[in-house]
Amino acid sequence: MRRRSASAAWLLPLVLLAATEAAPGDGQPAPPRNAIFLLGDGMGFAQVKAYRMYADDPATELVEPLPMEAWQVGSVSTDSIRLDCSAGDGHCVRDPHGFTDSASSATAYATGHDTVVGRLSTAQDGAPLPTVLEGARRAGKATGIVVTSQLTHASPAAFGSHVLSRQDTRSIADQYFDARWNDQPMIDVLLGGGYDDLCRGDRDLVPEFRAAGYDIVRDREQLRASRANHVLGLFAPQGLPLAWDRDASVPSLAEMTRHALTVLERDPDGFFLMVEGSQIDWAAHENSIAGVISEMEDFIAAVRVALDFAAARDDTLVIVTADHETGGMALGRDNVYRWDATPLHGLRMTPKAMAQAYADGDEALSALVAREVRFDLDPEEIRRLDAAPRRMEPARAAIADVLNRRTLTGWSTAGHTGADVPLYVYGPGRERFFGVMQNEAVGQALWAVFLPPPDADH
Amino acid sequence: MRRRSASAAWLLPLVLLAATEAAPGDGQPAPPRNAIFLLGDGMGFAQVKAYRMYADDPATELVEPLPMEAWQVGSVSTDSIRLDCSAGDGHCVRDPHGFTDSASSATAYATGHDTVVGRLSTAQDGAPLPTVLEGARRAGKATGIVVTSQLTHASPAAFGSHVLSRQDTRSIADQYFDARWNDQPMIDVLLGGGYDDLCRGDRDLVPEFRAAGYDIVRDREQLRASRANHVLGLFAPQGLPLAWDRDASVPSLAEMTRHALTVLERDPDGFFLMVEGSQIDWAAHENSIAGVISEMEDFIAAVRVALDFAAARDDTLVIVTADHETGGMALGRDNVYRWDATPLHGLRMTPKAMAQAYADGDEALSALVAREVRFDLDPEEIRRLDAAPRRMEPARAAIADVLNRRTLTGWSTAGHTGADVPLYVYGPGRERFFGVMQNEAVGQALWAVFLPPPDADH
Repeated sequence: MRRRSASAAWLLPLVLLAATEAAPGDGQPAPPRNAIFLLGDGMGFAQVKAYRMYADDPATELVEPLPMEAWQVGSVSTDSIRLDCSAGDGHCVRDPHGFTDSASSATAYATGHDTVVGRLSTAQDGAPLPTVLEGARRAGKATGIVVTSQLTHASPAAFGSHVLSRQDTRSIADQYFDARWNDQPMIDVLLGGGYDDLCRGDRDLVPEFRAAGYDIVRDREQLRASRANHVLGLFAPQGLPLAWDRDASVPSLAEMTRHALTVLERDPDGFFLMVEGSQIDWAAHENSIAGVISEMEDFIAAVRVALDFAAARDDTLVIVTADHETGGMALGRDNVYRWDATPLHGLRMTPKAMAQAYADGDEALSALVAREVRFDLDPEEIRRLDAAPRRMEPARAAIADVLNRRTLTGWSTAGHTGADVPLYVYGPGRERFFGVMQNEAVGQALWAVFLPPPDADH
Repeated sequence: MRRRSASAAWLLPLVLLAATEAAPGDGQPAPPRNAIFLLGDGMGFAQVKAYRMYADDPATELVEPLPMEAWQVGSVSTDSIRLDCSAGDGHCVRDPHGFTDSASSATAYATGHDTVVGRLSTAQDGAPLPTVLEGARRAGKATGIVVTSQLTHASPAAFGSHVLSRQDTRSIADQYFDARWNDQPMIDVLLGGGYDDLCRGDRDLVPEFRAAGYDIVRDREQLRASRANHVLGLFAPQGLPLAWDRDASVPSLAEMTRHALTVLERDPDGFFLMVEGSQIDWAAHENSIAGVISEMEDFIAAVRVALDFAAARDDTLVIVTADHETGGMALGRDNVYRWDATPLHGLRMTPKAMAQAYADGDEALSALVAREVRFDLDPEEIRRLDAAPRRMEPARAAIADVLNRRTLTGWSTAGHTGADVPLYVYGPGRERFFGVMQNEAVGQALWAVFLPPPDADH
């Protein structure tokens, strides 16, 4: 009987699915009033599966699906335009085999157009490409961006700025304030890191945002206390600490998302909200399974907030996807037919924070790690750890390696891969997303569903 | 304009999708008359993406989707029951972190039930589990199995036999003939390899099948000439050669699939056909990107045959999926942001066949490889190749390694991984398959759609 009921849990959303897909009247369904776009940066299928196994309740026979998994509609192929300028004569040609970066992939989602790697909502010829956030604002809707990176990082910046290089963070920050619609900044709610990019020697945008009516919040308490319709939250000089390494003053991605929804839903015309689990990618670049799980936990909790919000109403489209896979991550390595999240259980600090403590202290690395993990280090692990010099990066890599081996996590690269990424869609307009789609086709479908031209047949 | 038309190609199946999902009358749609279940053994998302890039037409800007890709409905989590008997006291416990094998995963698809790794359509308590092929036969339908492995291999055997161990190939072969319904063997069309398992010292099933009215065919010409409603095709002593290594006497998986469909569609009650691209897995176990592409090419051509068959009618359900991922394959390695199929173009022999030629001859391995590939080997590649002793396996591994490095293919293991695999479904009943599903839930949905109980509400 248990077996049967556990299986049924995987089929439960069928009812919800049917309810969602039914047209509300005789004709075409109305476009969704709200859209929430949640991006797991670097989140491939392996990152999702690993977190599903990590988050599993061992008291039930089957592994519980994650909140968005019943809503998978297909996959995304994340190709972009990577130029090969290696000829050295100033001429570049397109490399058909090159992978995307966060800038060009987020541009595809935000604008429906492919662009060159490194660009933000700017076409290959340099022309700005309107973003769905701007389109929502022009349609009278409220807008928000919530991330765990600095707010000026590539993915959020593709929704709220137009620059030729993602490195141009000054211009990105300035555009967040200077780009206007009806004499107001384009983005009502900005929550994330990156204080140093907004408060600079050449320009301090913080008092400018305050003068424009924004609540400026710097920690979780201030965020909770804010009642304003315009909020700028800056919780770290650059990116936020990894979720497991945050102290109580830093809000989670779920808390930031919930706050943004509370603010944005006040707008009777609806809203567009972009949410990013930014550092899944960073942890995967470092080939750290512990870091990936820390950031997946943070991101999936935010996904749950968005889906809970949408489930309580019938006017909100929720898209959950990724910009590319990072790391060539594999569940299983070295010919062993298993992958085990157990060594990560109980960890409340990532290898990064442990390495920092090691670099700042005088304790042996193996002793420090032994205190944080719930398994006994074997002699080979102790040897590997204590061989690391007292510096941040080698210590971090040594700890990450112990956890990769213990969990049996494989990695093929410290960079991005060409893997397709999952696509989950909930709510009105869902039927426009299906199968294997190009990332710019997802952006085109988002535009078509959420911001149809005035003469569209609805 | 080109850009626009290339994008439109990705959206084209929308019309087909709508047509397929429309109910034929006022009530519930009728169950499909026919079902074709196509299994890419070991085919994860990376294997699919790699073949999509390999098969791309470079004259168009976008990479063309593969025939089944518009029909992706979700993913499959392929967990099974792996027992850990390492205590050594005769008692085994379930390892919740262990991966499936082909036997237990194919059992999940064939029966809708999880079972222990290594078992074929037999429950953990030893009871036989009815298979969808047997259910179709009992419903009066024709049945077929078409594979590139030996016919007694795990995946096909899960559909047509019940044994406690996949190693028991004698019993599997015997059951193919001895298991009866209405005095006829359960399976009308059997095409693949494995002559040695059927024609054995202890029992020769070939004359028995012939006496029961089966055409026995041993090569492509005989297959083409066969007009019988019962066919046993045995094209190799064990598995067929890899697709790129076959001579003209061995049919392709697409040809075998087409022949099976021609035979099976004569049954007015409909049919069930299982098709397997068996050796994607074998090539991935050997970490050979060239072998994977050879077998993906063979499998996808068969998928196209099945989808073309179904597209011409409205009564055929087609499922394309995999039993697990093999190899932890990644597109991209060593921090390079690209994956390039070009070094595989023009290859008409896999590393396996090249290694065989090397082992059987006296030529330098680098000279042999240089003649087969369309790129110039660099000095390091020549050194690596010529360091291989004149034996099959080290030579094969050395050639595979050159092609893995050239294409930038990464691998984490020579075994299976825990990755989810893609799920594509076309035709009536498609709406029952969606999101992330357990493999046994896919089997349950197949049974529910294709063989509903007589009192079901249709």
